[in-house]
Parts: sequence; structure tokens; C-alpha cells
Amino acid sequence: MLSVEEALERILSEIHPLSAIQVPLAEAVGLVLAEDVIAGEDMPPFANSAMDGFALRSQDSQPRDGQPPRLRVTGSVAAGYVAEHAVEAGTAMRIMTGAPVPPGADAVIQIELTNYDGPQSTWVEVLQAVAPGNNVRPAGEDMRSGQTILRQGSEIGPWEIGILATLGKAMVPVIRKPRVAILGTGDEVIEIDQPLAPGKIRNSNSYLLEAAVRHAGAQPIRLGVARDTVESLREKFSQAMDSDLILTSGGVSVGDFDLVKNIMAEQGEINFWRINMRPGKPVAFGHIGSTPLLGLPGNPVSAAVTFELFGRPVLRKMAGHTRLSRPQVEVVAEDGIRERASRRHYVRAHVEWRDGRFVAHTTGKQGSNIMTSLLNANALVIVPEGGVEIKAGETAQALMLDWPEV
Amino acid sequence: MLSVEEALERILSEIHPLSAIQVPLAEAVGLVLAEDVIAGEDMPPFANSAMDGFALRSQDSQPRDGQPPRLRVTGSVAAGYVAEHAVEAGTAMRIMTGAPVPPGADAVIQIELTNYDGPQSTWVEVLQAVAPGNNVRPAGEDMRSGQTILRQGSEIGPWEIGILATLGKAMVPVIRKPRVAILGTGDEVIEIDQPLAPGKIRNSNSYLLEAAVRHAGAQPIRLGVARDTVESLREKFSQAMDSDLILTSGGVSVGDFDLVKNIMAEQGEINFWRINMRPGKPVAFGHIGSTPLLGLPGNPVSAAVTFELFGRPVLRKMAGHTRLSRPQVEVVAEDGIRERASRRHYVRAHVEWRDGRFVAHTTGKQGSNIMTSLLNANALVIVPEGGVEIKAGETAQALMLDWPEV
Repeated sequence: MLSVEEALERILSEIHPLSAIQVPLAEAVGLVLAEDVIAGEDMPPFANSAMDGFALRSQDSQPRDGQPPRLRVTGSVAAGYVAEHAVEAGTAMRIMTGAPVPPGADAVIQIELTNYDGPQSTWVEVLQAVAPGNNVRPAGEDMRSGQTILRQGSEIGPWEIGILATLGKAMVPVIRKPRVAILGTGDEVIEIDQPLAPGKIRNSNSYLLEAAVRHAGAQPIRLGVARDTVESLREKFSQAMDSDLILTSGGVSVGDFDLVKNIMAEQGEINFWRINMRPGKPVAFGHIGSTPLLGLPGNPVSAAVTFELFGRPVLRKMAGHTRLSRPQVEVVAEDGIRERASRRHYVRAHVEWRDGRFVAHTTGKQGSNIMTSLLNANALVIVPEGGVEIKAGETAQALMLDWPEV
Repeated sequence: MLSVEEALERILSEIHPLSAIQVPLAEAVGLVLAEDVIAGEDMPPFANSAMDGFALRSQDSQPRDGQPPRLRVTGSVAAGYVAEHAVEAGTAMRIMTGAPVPPGADAVIQIELTNYDGPQSTWVEVLQAVAPGNNVRPAGEDMRSGQTILRQGSEIGPWEIGILATLGKAMVPVIRKPRVAILGTGDEVIEIDQPLAPGKIRNSNSYLLEAAVRHAGAQPIRLGVARDTVESLREKFSQAMDSDLILTSGGVSVGDFDLVKNIMAEQGEINFWRINMRPGKPVAFGHIGSTPLLGLPGNPVSAAVTFELFGRPVLRKMAGHTRLSRPQVEVVAEDGIRERASRRHYVRAHVEWRDGRFVAHTTGKQGSNIMTSLLNANALVIVPEGGVEIKAGETAQALMLDWPEV
């Protein structure tokens, strides 16, 4: 049996980032930058006022004979406009936050430290002396023209979107989003809006994986369920081949009736692995033509967990990320984990941060057929190989699948 | 000045969850359930085999005269099909994982513990005695008909999608996604694909907020930028009124040129607050007609931070969530925070989990005009009111905005 780490390493060694494309800024969130982003201008592009107040020459703010100086107001500058004339000795201009500091002025005094006669006042009394540069944000204080602001390979979050907008990047070079064909298999699987018939179960995997693929930042394409016939399987695989990844569920275990393995082997180069983990021992990986294929177990719990451990890192690598795996933290297993397994056991659990530590509660019975073990789980507690028991209150490592709102 | 907590409480007291709608299952991920989900059938719906092997009567597995018993194989059951006849004394049926256990059989022996003569074998030798129920998953083991599986108010993640699919919920009752009209204001703001002109800056807030609204699970509608004229503002507000929330940026501070405040006050009931925080002191909240309006500062850093503190909880409450705010953890401020502020300071930082604790690094200069302070930030370190200094290595509370991949 392969270890989880060996299997992941083998898979990732055959996965490469996809090509770069240009997308409109609003579509870039969540994607990875394909090139460095360099500022084309200083930001802010001009010295501007940090306050509503009056722009003046700082030396004119000094008291005269112990009295606040009174300056003549020669005009005003609103944000978005430029002054019509310079500030000269003995004068000031009203100025709004963000407006360009007029030529001649080297400081701004905030409105709260002045006396004046309403919005149209022709004079202002300066109640406090100010130093040069007071309330002035210099051009280029935030970013300098030519400076590298964002690095190739970094993920674009909402705040990076704001910075790209400021820099005028209406189109952004990104690694394109992987397209993932999702294929269920098995004559027992019926569509979700069909009534159950004897021996049948509903197609939960395709919907679960579609949502998980979307959460991983990729674009799912649900192809439905292949019947257990050569024709049906060949047809579905041919539909899937123009995607970036084919994700199947079912048909990768040892059963005689598993045609899927044969068709996979016929149409491509696929390795069938037994992985030292529970749930989810059987996993397949290889290529159909030149398209990578990841074959997950048919059991929904196994499909969910193996997607997290193998599918998500594959999609992240394709999308250009360099950080591929979920964080691991130490948790206190408050209720313990008594179910022993010889394989490494990924126990579904709900973890919360309480009193300075992470506390884990398992989600109930952990059989790979117990789908309700997925409910409310935000972590996988890792029980090492070899039938280890974790007693109540002992610590364990956990993969954090989410960081919950509190 | 209001505290952040007071302001948030006043805002949330006027926000209510939106109406419930039915959406197709694939569109339900990330939304909140509007009703309890009750299992309509047992799951699994029938007793089925946990292994590939042979279905038999457990008493027939006992050795006879110290020899493994040999049973007659009368047929086979594949997943998705039902047996054509019962298992009788002295017989067995080949069975695949997930296939219904045929009548008469009370156990399955896995294929590895048998001898047989290939796929068409008419006999099987049973190498180990098995107990009743061996490798049989009983009907209803996972879920019982009538059992409440998911509660109203819970968020639907990828794994819950799988469970809803299994239960045949092709349409799901959810709280609908909030529609958020995003409106920039100010004559200084130009579109992102325009060259900079004197006094102008680009419209970063609308794009930043659009991405942040989408990340918060809501649907953004970018309305562009209102000019500083009564007509332009009135027109934009009228376009925004059929949304669930109007989100503005700019125009809520004390400046004389801020028409926005006047138009807001004319068209609705709006409170203008000074909040004891940095960045982002001025925030407006109220209604235009019956539509809630949240007015954020114009400065991009302030807009980003106030959206996190006020906008995101508003959208989560509208979407039916009961957990509204980001988690707070204790972090070690590795490089300290020397910039003192009399208001509570939300310092942008990158936090990582290292050696059993959270370690925070600030993102550089923290002026509210320094947009690059948003780069690579995944947390806001909270420096309490009153000019507190946090020395290198001291601890502080931080709001975690993200839980990063490692």
C-alpha cells in the first residue's frame, strides 16, 4: 500500500500549472497572478490633503504678536480638481480631503484648528502653527512608479483587487481556472430527482464533487453517470477529454463487475493504487489521452475525503498556487477516538478554538458508509497507522478544512 | 464617538434575514437552509454488502469435519440490481460492494477469504466462519426515515450537498442571496481603464467591494461612480433601491463639498456616525426608502476594513447566518506595533500558525492612505483604544480574515 504522502507526490509530479490568460479585473478574484504587477505611476499620483481644511505656506501659520495669523482665502480645491492659482504669502485656499495640494502651499491645517466665516469666508484664522508637510500626503507615498507591487504566483483576494484597480489594471494576467469533468459510474446510481427503486441509490457524489470543485476555485462540469457498459463509459470519457481533469467516482476497487477499470486502462495509462488510509483506500491516477484522470472511490464519504487529500491539491497546482495543502494544527480530542484502524484514519470532526486551544469533537460513527459523519465537519483528525487509540483529552493532529465564523 | 460594538449592534438590529426560496441543489452551496431537512427514506434504503464476496447463511460458514464448507453458487448480485432468487441452505451468491443482500442470506464473506474457480465458478469454499451480519450494512444504518438530518439555519457546504443529493432533494429551501448595489462617489474618481488626469484617482473601491461582497456570499451589482451633483446622486440612488443593501463609499465625512450626505438625508433616514476606530472613523447607516444603506469612508483602506467589520456581518445576517463575525485569536506580534492611535486601531497583518501559536507580522506602514498595507493581510490585529503600544513579542487579539493554505 502507498502512503498518502507518496500517492500525493506521484500525482503532483504529473500536474502542471495551466496557461496564462488575461481576464477582466472583476473576474480575477480567487485566481493566481501569472506575472508580476508593476506600478505604472506613483500612488498617490499627486500630493494631496489628508484632511478638510486650508492649504497654506507653513511659515504663515506662525502667531504674529501672540495672535493667530489671519490669512486671505483666495479660492478652494475640491477632490478631483486642481487649484486655479498658487497659494502666495499671506493667503490660503480651502481644501478637501484627497484634493491636490495647490502650488505654493506646503501644509494643510485641518478645519477644526481654524476660525472662518462660513463656507464663503474670505479669511481664515490659523489657531495652531503647523510644520511643512502637515496633513500632506506626498505623491508616491504608497507606491512608486516602477515598483513591483504584486508578485507572480500570488493569489488575488478582494483587497488585491482594490490595489489592481488603483493601478489601472482593467485586465489582469492570471492562470486560468481548471475545468473539471465530473463523472459518476455504476448501474446502481440514479439521478437525484428519481424515486428510489430496489437496489438503487442516488447520485450524491457528482453533486458533492461539483460543489467541492467549485470551492477549490475550479469550474466543474457535471457529466452525469456512466452505465456499467463499455459503450456508455467510452462515450462519457470522450466527452470528458477536453477538460483539464477528469474526476470519476466508483469503479476503482477490486470488484469483478468494475468495467470502469478496464475502460480506463484501455483508453489511457492509469495506475490503480491501494492507499494506506481510511476512508478511501482505492484511488486511481493517470491519463486518458493527455488529460489527467483522478479516480476516487464510489462511497460518498471516501470520495469526499480523497477529494480533499488529492483532488484539491491537484486543482490548486493547476491554478498556479504553490501552497497546496490544508493547514495542520494540534487539537485536543475532547471525546477521544476509540475506533481503531490499521490504516491511517481521517476522522471527521468539528474543531473550534476555545480558551487558547483547538478542541475537536468527532461527528459520530465513522464508518466509510456513514454519510452523516460528514455533517458539520470542518476538520479531519489524523489517527496514525497501526490501530492507535486516542483517549479523551489527548492531542492529535488535524487537517483544518475551514476556519469557521464564530 | 460610538464604539465598533455599539455601531454594529445598532446596524444589525435593523437587518433581518431575507425571504426563503427554492433553488436547484447545485446552486445551494454556501447558502443557509430555510427549513429543516428530514429524511424521506431509510439510508441506505436496503441492507447491502460492505465487500465484494459471497452472500450466504452464516451457519453455512461453519467448518464441517474440520474442513472449509463448500457451497453451491446459484447466481450473482451486482450493485444496482436485486437477486433473482433467495439464498438457501448450502448455497451462496456472488455479491458486489453496495449490492442488496439477497433474501435468505444474513452475512457476506469477503472474496479474499474464499476459494473459487474464477468468475463463473459454480462453487465456493468458505475459509473462515462468519457471524450473522458480517459485512452487511443494515438498511437505515446511516439515516432513518423521518429523522431530521439538517437543521434550518445551517450553512450548506459541499459535504451537505452530497447528503441532500442522497436524500433526493433536487430543490432546496434556502434564504436567498442578498443583492448589493455598490456605489462610488466623488468627482475625483475615474474608471479603472482611464488614464490618470490631474487631481483624479481610479475607482478602486467599487472593485474591491464587489469582490468582498462576492466573498461574503452575496451578489454584487456595481453601479459605477456618482458625480458630485444632486442629479447624478439621485439617479444612482434610484437605481440602487431595488437591491437588498446599498453600499456606498465616500461622501460620509465632514467636508463641505460632500453632497452625498445631503442627498442621503433627503432621500431617507441616515445616521452619520463617528466610530472610535482607525482606519475608518466616519460611517453612515440608515435607509433609503425601505432599503438599508451602509455608507463607508472613501479611503480604500478604510472602506476595506469597515466592510469587514460592518458590511460582512450585515450580509451574513441577511443570508440567514447566525454566526456573523470573524473569529478572534491571540497572536504574538512578532515585530511589535509602535504606531500609537487614540482610537482603536485595526492593524493589517499576516498571521500564521507556527510552533503551536499564531504569529503576526504587520504589513508595513499603517496609514489609512497606504493601500499596500492591505497586501498579503489575512488578519486585523486589534490595538486597544488609548495609544497602547504593543512591543515586539507581546500578545494581542486579532480578527482572522482567512485561514490560509500552508
